[in-house]
Amino acid sequence: MNIVTATPHPRTALDTLRAFEAGDLTPERHLRDLLDLTARIEPDLRAWAHLDPDEALKSLAAAAPTGLMRGLPIGVKDVIAVAGMPLRCGSPIHADAIAASDAASVALARMAGAYVMGKTETTEFATYKPAPTQNPAAPGHTPGGSSSGSAATVAAGLVPLALGTQTAGSVIRPASYCGIVGYKPSFDLIDPSGTKTLARSFDTIGIFARAVADAALYVEAVTGLPLLDAARRADPPVTAGLCRSPAWEEAATPELHAAWDDLAARLRGKTTLREITLPAEYATAAQAHPRLMAREASQALAAEWRAHRGQLSAQLQAMLEQGREMEEREAVAIRAMIARLRQRFAQDLGGVDVLITPAAPGPAPAIETGTGSPVFNRLWTLLGAPCVSVPGLAGPDGRPIGMQLVGPMGADGKVLQAAGWLETILR
Amino acid sequence: MNIVTATPHPRTALDTLRAFEAGDLTPERHLRDLLDLTARIEPDLRAWAHLDPDEALKSLAAAAPTGLMRGLPIGVKDVIAVAGMPLRCGSPIHADAIAASDAASVALARMAGAYVMGKTETTEFATYKPAPTQNPAAPGHTPGGSSSGSAATVAAGLVPLALGTQTAGSVIRPASYCGIVGYKPSFDLIDPSGTKTLARSFDTIGIFARAVADAALYVEAVTGLPLLDAARRADPPVTAGLCRSPAWEEAATPELHAAWDDLAARLRGKTTLREITLPAEYATAAQAHPRLMAREASQALAAEWRAHRGQLSAQLQAMLEQGREMEEREAVAIRAMIARLRQRFAQDLGGVDVLITPAAPGPAPAIETGTGSPVFNRLWTLLGAPCVSVPGLAGPDGRPIGMQLVGPMGADGKVLQAAGWLETILR
Repeated sequence: MNIVTATPHPRTALDTLRAFEAGDLTPERHLRDLLDLTARIEPDLRAWAHLDPDEALKSLAAAAPTGLMRGLPIGVKDVIAVAGMPLRCGSPIHADAIAASDAASVALARMAGAYVMGKTETTEFATYKPAPTQNPAAPGHTPGGSSSGSAATVAAGLVPLALGTQTAGSVIRPASYCGIVGYKPSFDLIDPSGTKTLARSFDTIGIFARAVADAALYVEAVTGLPLLDAARRADPPVTAGLCRSPAWEEAATPELHAAWDDLAARLRGKTTLREITLPAEYATAAQAHPRLMAREASQALAAEWRAHRGQLSAQLQAMLEQGREMEEREAVAIRAMIARLRQRFAQDLGGVDVLITPAAPGPAPAIETGTGSPVFNRLWTLLGAPCVSVPGLAGPDGRPIGMQLVGPMGADGKVLQAAGWLETILR
Repeated sequence: MNIVTATPHPRTALDTLRAFEAGDLTPERHLRDLLDLTARIEPDLRAWAHLDPDEALKSLAAAAPTGLMRGLPIGVKDVIAVAGMPLRCGSPIHADAIAASDAASVALARMAGAYVMGKTETTEFATYKPAPTQNPAAPGHTPGGSSSGSAATVAAGLVPLALGTQTAGSVIRPASYCGIVGYKPSFDLIDPSGTKTLARSFDTIGIFARAVADAALYVEAVTGLPLLDAARRADPPVTAGLCRSPAWEEAATPELHAAWDDLAARLRGKTTLREITLPAEYATAAQAHPRLMAREASQALAAEWRAHRGQLSAQLQAMLEQGREMEEREAVAIRAMIARLRQRFAQDLGGVDVLITPAAPGPAPAIETGTGSPVFNRLWTLLGAPCVSVPGLAGPDGRPIGMQLVGPMGADGKVLQAAGWLETILR
């Protein structure tokens, strides 16, 4: 069946909460609707790594009766632990693993009234080997990775909110490809404990949603940081920087060129815009990202490498081998460089509040080619920057193209506010 | 039996390796000796959380045949995962937990030829509620916490090397109390994945050993960073700072006052020494440490809080409650302050290479009073600084007092070199 048209206008999480409050919908009715839709499209979509309807109903029954997210289901990427559910990490090595406890990002959501609907597909250990998931917004094309299932379930209307992780571009890129909102908070804002580590300097828990305010809701609910009002206010930033980023020359597709011009035209007169080119150091830093990621991955996946090497994909083995061969001295130097740049980034923005920059090189590539490139994400992840991908643009054939808001580490409120504003313009 | 005199002169790890090479000892004979000694003193010492002799022998049989640590056993604090062994975290909540995979710090050690002898006792989730462990160097007194069993097994000669974790002072303080070497590397130098999180901004894997070079050996083996030569060279630092630290006025005991004078006398003429007083900001930072620790712990232990609150100790519940009540905005501000200070610390050392500073307020307190205070450790942990506690001083009744070498994040080699030098002076 056509997975795209299955759910023309799924509700946002905030609309669902309003429907609960108004008595127009109960959490149980909502879940049963989502399970029905899942039963219809999941055989084609293949976005859930684990979903047991009875278990989901029990999870709802055990949800906290109060809290910002009361009665809302979440999808959880299968590298994040949920008590009693599989934790396969997209790898046959962990085919039989069942998590004993919830990850912090899950337990805190439950304490805010949410419940877990199921686990979502991930690429192998959140790296490259694709999950089986289709892109509901661009059939035949990748949903992106590594949080493939979280992006696809939210885009298809199967769940209003889903957790992902980003080490290079694994939240922002799939959100862009699937035409939804992806929010990677500042590094370490959400406690990653209970999540399978890939690269400790970069791993960040992020949120998929169908509206900027929904993503803000989740992070406010689990951290207490006041973000929702900023996202809903959606005031224009005083000044915004248009930043093609150091990846543009190498990676921007013709569709991105066209979308960028479209964006500039739509923004004209809406706020003070400046073209921003970052100092050359930032391009150097972006190139260091994959090196440190491979090095740290070779340490984080040491147990799998030692005992189950033959069950790792050839591409992952090659990345870990490269990481193992790198000198630790270089890793120490890269971490020191990152710490310096994180301190400097706010000044190097040259007075603008936020940057607007591409979320991905273009629309989702064909599914046979892999999960796309994180080249427009590595630098911001390295900087620990809050990033939000906002949908609304598209290539000539309708495949979505997201635009990304970025700010200095800690400026999550400002970035969400600007993202909420951009959302109203691109809607 | 007297746990102190059971092992008058246990070998260092490096001496054991030399004995293996010379054919004077086999790894199996070594392990059987350690198991015999354990059988004699463990009923009084209570340092192992889990030790099965057959399992230890199998672990040795499966050890890699080459590597820097070939044939050496390690003890692993029971908040760090070892495949197939319990992972109780000092809490009844996880009484039945068995780890599926090795933590990175363990898998990497196995790849370097080491094997796991057993798990060592920890306080409750590496916080305050004491483990049952005695101090083999000061019977009737605490071995310190939270890495109580790792410090005690190494001090008693039951294992040459053991892993611990430090979030406030949980490596350096027990090493000081037990009269051995504790090495807390720079933050994030050793991948903490597979370790139960307490506070993500601070948690650091550290090593207990009977010589500075042994601790360097472990970290070189698991990271590849060249540290062993520096530790063995033991050249004096060009300049060293004597720093009483911001905790002195509040916490130094009479025994520490005497030990500090003893230290100064022994150092006279050995290198260029300067008294260092850090700017007032550092005292403020030290006070922020327990606040951010409580906040982050309330997130990391959210699953336990939600589902098993009654099985948490009253003291831990109070800490988590305090963390829950703190505003996330303050946590974000403290993390930003920490990032700034980590950048500045090298300059604020005023030209000295390393600081020499107390490791603890004095010798080990009576066991009924808890596990002692981390007040002389919080600041350095917050700064991500490499720290080494060096034994050799003592109070009037013979209870050990350690002195701590500290340097800026990333300067592990310099700190180990200075620690090796101080070790020769205090021996």
